[in-house]
Amino acid sequence: MADAVVRSKKPATKKRTPAGGAPAAPRSADEAHEARIDRAAVTGLLLGTWADTRREAREMIKDPAFHKIEGMPMAEHRERALSQLQLVVQHGGSRRAFPEEYGGLADNGANLAGFEELVLADPSMQIKGGVQWGLFGSAIYQLGTKEHWDAWLPGVIDLSLPGAFAMTEMGHGSDVAAIGTTATYDPETEEFVIHTPFRAATKEFLGNAALHGRAATVFAQLITGGVNYGVHCFFVPIRDEGGAMLPGITSEDDGVKGGLNGIDNGRLAFDQVRVPRTNLLNRYGDVAADGTYRSDIPSPGRRFFTMLGALVQGRVSLDGAATTGAALAEYIAITYANQRRQFDSGAGTDEVVLLDYGKHQRRLLPRLAQTYAQFFAHDELLQKFDGVFSGRTDTPDEREDLETLAAALKPLSTWNALDTIQECREACGGAGFMAENRLVGLHHDLDVYVTFEGDNNVLLQLVGKRLLSDYAKQFKGADAAALARYAVGQTAGKIFHGAGLRQLGQAVADLGSTARSVELGLRADQQHELLADRVQQMTADLAMVLRPASKLSQDEAAALFNEHQAELIEAARAHGELLQWEAFSDGVAAIEGTSTELSAGGSRELAGTAQVLGWLRDLFGLSLVEKHLAWYLVNGRLSTQRAAAVSRYIDRLCRRLRPHAQDLVDAFGFAPEHVRAPIALGGEQQRQDEARAYYAELQASGRAPVSEKSLKKK
Amino acid sequence: MADAVVRSKKPATKKRTPAGGAPAAPRSADEAHEARIDRAAVTGLLLGTWADTRREAREMIKDPAFHKIEGMPMAEHRERALSQLQLVVQHGGSRRAFPEEYGGLADNGANLAGFEELVLADPSMQIKGGVQWGLFGSAIYQLGTKEHWDAWLPGVIDLSLPGAFAMTEMGHGSDVAAIGTTATYDPETEEFVIHTPFRAATKEFLGNAALHGRAATVFAQLITGGVNYGVHCFFVPIRDEGGAMLPGITSEDDGVKGGLNGIDNGRLAFDQVRVPRTNLLNRYGDVAADGTYRSDIPSPGRRFFTMLGALVQGRVSLDGAATTGAALAEYIAITYANQRRQFDSGAGTDEVVLLDYGKHQRRLLPRLAQTYAQFFAHDELLQKFDGVFSGRTDTPDEREDLETLAAALKPLSTWNALDTIQECREACGGAGFMAENRLVGLHHDLDVYVTFEGDNNVLLQLVGKRLLSDYAKQFKGADAAALARYAVGQTAGKIFHGAGLRQLGQAVADLGSTARSVELGLRADQQHELLADRVQQMTADLAMVLRPASKLSQDEAAALFNEHQAELIEAARAHGELLQWEAFSDGVAAIEGTSTELSAGGSRELAGTAQVLGWLRDLFGLSLVEKHLAWYLVNGRLSTQRAAAVSRYIDRLCRRLRPHAQDLVDAFGFAPEHVRAPIALGGEQQRQDEARAYYAELQASGRAPVSEKSLKKK
Repeated sequence: MADAVVRSKKPATKKRTPAGGAPAAPRSADEAHEARIDRAAVTGLLLGTWADTRREAREMIKDPAFHKIEGMPMAEHRERALSQLQLVVQHGGSRRAFPEEYGGLADNGANLAGFEELVLADPSMQIKGGVQWGLFGSAIYQLGTKEHWDAWLPGVIDLSLPGAFAMTEMGHGSDVAAIGTTATYDPETEEFVIHTPFRAATKEFLGNAALHGRAATVFAQLITGGVNYGVHCFFVPIRDEGGAMLPGITSEDDGVKGGLNGIDNGRLAFDQVRVPRTNLLNRYGDVAADGTYRSDIPSPGRRFFTMLGALVQGRVSLDGAATTGAALAEYIAITYANQRRQFDSGAGTDEVVLLDYGKHQRRLLPRLAQTYAQFFAHDELLQKFDGVFSGRTDTPDEREDLETLAAALKPLSTWNALDTIQECREACGGAGFMAENRLVGLHHDLDVYVTFEGDNNVLLQLVGKRLLSDYAKQFKGADAAALARYAVGQTAGKIFHGAGLRQLGQAVADLGSTARSVELGLRADQQHELLADRVQQMTADLAMVLRPASKLSQDEAAALFNEHQAELIEAARAHGELLQWEAFSDGVAAIEGTSTELSAGGSRELAGTAQVLGWLRDLFGLSLVEKHLAWYLVNGRLSTQRAAAVSRYIDRLCRRLRPHAQDLVDAFGFAPEHVRAPIALGGEQQRQDEARAYYAELQASGRAPVSEKSLKKK
Repeated sequence: MADAVVRSKKPATKKRTPAGGAPAAPRSADEAHEARIDRAAVTGLLLGTWADTRREAREMIKDPAFHKIEGMPMAEHRERALSQLQLVVQHGGSRRAFPEEYGGLADNGANLAGFEELVLADPSMQIKGGVQWGLFGSAIYQLGTKEHWDAWLPGVIDLSLPGAFAMTEMGHGSDVAAIGTTATYDPETEEFVIHTPFRAATKEFLGNAALHGRAATVFAQLITGGVNYGVHCFFVPIRDEGGAMLPGITSEDDGVKGGLNGIDNGRLAFDQVRVPRTNLLNRYGDVAADGTYRSDIPSPGRRFFTMLGALVQGRVSLDGAATTGAALAEYIAITYANQRRQFDSGAGTDEVVLLDYGKHQRRLLPRLAQTYAQFFAHDELLQKFDGVFSGRTDTPDEREDLETLAAALKPLSTWNALDTIQECREACGGAGFMAENRLVGLHHDLDVYVTFEGDNNVLLQLVGKRLLSDYAKQFKGADAAALARYAVGQTAGKIFHGAGLRQLGQAVADLGSTARSVELGLRADQQHELLADRVQQMTADLAMVLRPASKLSQDEAAALFNEHQAELIEAARAHGELLQWEAFSDGVAAIEGTSTELSAGGSRELAGTAQVLGWLRDLFGLSLVEKHLAWYLVNGRLSTQRAAAVSRYIDRLCRRLRPHAQDLVDAFGFAPEHVRAPIALGGEQQRQDEARAYYAELQASGRAPVSEKSLKKK
């Protein structure tokens, strides 16, 4: 019934008469007679808080010396990536995060912003730079103290001391606490003995380990006086000036990988390697000359997580780089889809532009909305990161929130990047499979983003556990019966709604005018309610079902938890989606604020920007609701009528946004030197024009063959 | 409420006391005290009708000369692939499809079965072989006549005449009818003039075009006497014996691709190239010396589709190869997940095996069920193909059914292969990203399977149109009011149910005992009803909404169709899923039949096989229902209670199948020479054992450090 009502309406987009019979939706804002977005303003919004640094980095990487050469053999690619890092040093790109006394800028947000842009040039360079400055250098800076900084930071920054970050082992990736490498203190010589006791304890997948690293920050179990104080980090030289391995250290090459082959990943094993006591990076725990251990953080668990938390920037930067990578793929696929034609519509001789196909819009536009959401969410993450790491907001709570936010956003954006890049590659057909058009290379290189710096599923479990503990805090002191009452029905939702959980994201300042969302019951505030309630209900459901765990044996409790592992991960994903939606909505609201202020002066473009981005945010919100539609129905949050309306509304939003698609990808602000894909640089349009001119001329000449079909009609 | 009922039950699997506190589900059929599958029997089932040929091909490719070398530079890889094809010729692998008078076996089914297995060695070899024998050779054989066969088939078969298949152009991929290349007949010289009139008409993405091809089967618009008779295929020599391009022909190299870099893809352009009249492959249309055109198929449209249909084997073979590729990925990921441990459960020192995690089971086991379904469905497709191409069942209806079946199955299996390989790669973490472990290479190589030999979305539209036309046939003569009555409610479903559509798949012989599917309302027959009704309802809904098209202008009709393009594709996908489910169920029913016959003799393993494969089929069916749960709810086919039960039942099936997972992947029958991934060949287990032995010995020695935590407790 709802069907019939909607189908009787015409789509909102205006029709035009096409040259040759293509489906008649407008292809640009001009054709649609609509206000268009202010592309430059949107570029500024997307570049975010550290826009200047991003522009500087983008300008730098216009130089072809930074560009990935597809198909380059691994050995050459590795040397090229190293030389690119040296260029980054020359451009001052390596020092932003470090203290001013070492020539740095002490600007953490700008540092990550600048690095994220390198993904446009060559992800190998981005990640190799991340290894050197974000992991190896950060370990020294974040986990060490002044003596270490004086000794090594200058070499880190100017790349005269390339290093590896030796945390992961063959046997332990996600479970860092269980690594096997030992660092046993010998008070006789005041040295630590670094040792790999069995094959599985070999350090694995380390960038700079196979070739270029001269030292490594090695994570090992610190043992002194017969006591294991848990994982600590040690500075260990591994190669001499000539590049030969130091005694007791062996390196193996990981060889070819699925991508990022400009990085010399490898393994390191240590055979009773001795380093001075002072090579322990001792900010959070130290060993005195006599072997006495001391730490300002008495809890071994909290100390461990504090040390790991100091290295959160890897996750933060992957969230940004994955978003920029997805944006590049969308720029390529949407630009191509706006030029490429295939099949006539049956009504004439001209062929249909790919982006005029309903299915093609459905494939590309919701993913474009997703990427926009990620840009806004990432800027919030980066602000929070900068706040904590600059010291401005460095409290334990803020650190915990930062880690949870990074753990929620990095999985979503890295998975979305792979999904988006793959869809874009398929949407470009065979041309998408050619390396020169960039899409396959992006997929290869970004593939590992979903499992490194924290496996995505493991990270989401951390977020899920945080959701549960925040939830539990609401009910401290409440008895089981009260909890049960809360957990069932809406009451829990309301109480929970106003509580700590939401503080992880930004408050939604203004949900905007209802006028732009015409579909009854699916306006912005209702999108928000649907998304937020889902997180709350899923968390409450989980808390309820896991509650018996406290009375079970550890075995049984683990089994119970394990049965609900997938749901915990789903709840965390829902939380991340909500945060992205809120960030996007805040961004739209900010434009609307500006737009209202300016409306007296008549800023048509700013109003257009707010309107179009409002539609795009709606498309993002509704796509999330559609993805989880079964949940909403099973949990009684949507009637079947409203549920059926969701997909139709998405179709309508796609048609509405179609004329703005090119503007929206142009607003990413990529120059041709960033795009480089021939199919998105006008070649396709040129060939189309040439072919159409040929046929027009042939027709005019009178020499055109007639079709057999027309012959038969006579 | 439904929740409470289910949660009060214990999972069906038996508990055991684990060594060190891991979640206590059994890991093997022995541990579960359950009948296990007869692995050899299942291998036979999966290898299908042409098992002998498949075993022969697998034996051949144990030779390392056939194995892909990851990271090999493109130029070397191309020469290696060529030399591998020469080895295939030596093994008699290239002649199976061709007539006996040319040394062939005239065995079409065996030919494809054998080729599909090559994906295990190197997909480049598989596809380069497909270009040579399945496309270039098939064009000569299927579209040509005896004169052509005599002249060229021997060279095709023994590879002395390597060739390219020149159909796709830069400007036209999916829309072959609109290609720009012309073949204009010149009665003066009795030659065709092959010409590329503009850049977009350049032949593109052709294997063997960049380097190795000596000739090409070129598709071009046949023009004679000023009339264009549509696309026909011509044999055109392109290089001389020394490898130099012949006059008027230029070749460009496509360079590096996302995968399949052992194939020399390239472009071909023709500048007024003359070939003898008799080089027209003239089975379906011919030009006499005086320029008169004649064809046994008067309709230009039907003639065109008949010619294309003769080349369906590419799609058929991709369905099989994608399935085998997915199976290899699952073998690797599940074997590794059965050995790899990460995180202790909190209850002891031993760590949890990955496959014991609920989420890990959810990631891998439904995809395993999907792959099993594809093996059964593919064998049916191959039988149908063999029937038509052997001439046994070569009727227009059977040809049409074959083409529809291939168009339905190839998209599903190639997309599923990418999805499965990617999930397997992620499930193996960093190790999954190492090229030596095969998963990334499989993804790179199989990526293009989803867009070549028919873009998946375009193929599904063909299927959707067939569904609509079959549907319309049911109502021939019925008036609009009757149609409307049918289309609403169940009546249409029932009528449609018994009709032509179902004939595309096999009839489901026996839906099996209800005993093995304990969940009320989700037994096999109900799974079938849910899946079948969905196809029927979606088709009926589409027919209803598209019905006004016949009264609209072509422009408006195209726009209406375009608005529902995504739904048409979804209906086709639902149809393909139903066919896969039915094939799987037929396979299970066949075992049950055998098992019942043998039960007097007490074949415990056959009964176990039927039981476990029955669970796996249920997992496949329920996973499809879960994927489309929102549709079932919106369309009133499932109550919210039953819908909520679907996911819980899937969880339970995963736990139930977990002990059989290794058996189920072992049953793929891969030898170590096919697997080759070190992580799936015991290295992980060896390292785990070594590490555990080290800790045990350390503990026994009394020299083990105590933990800081235990110290604090004192």
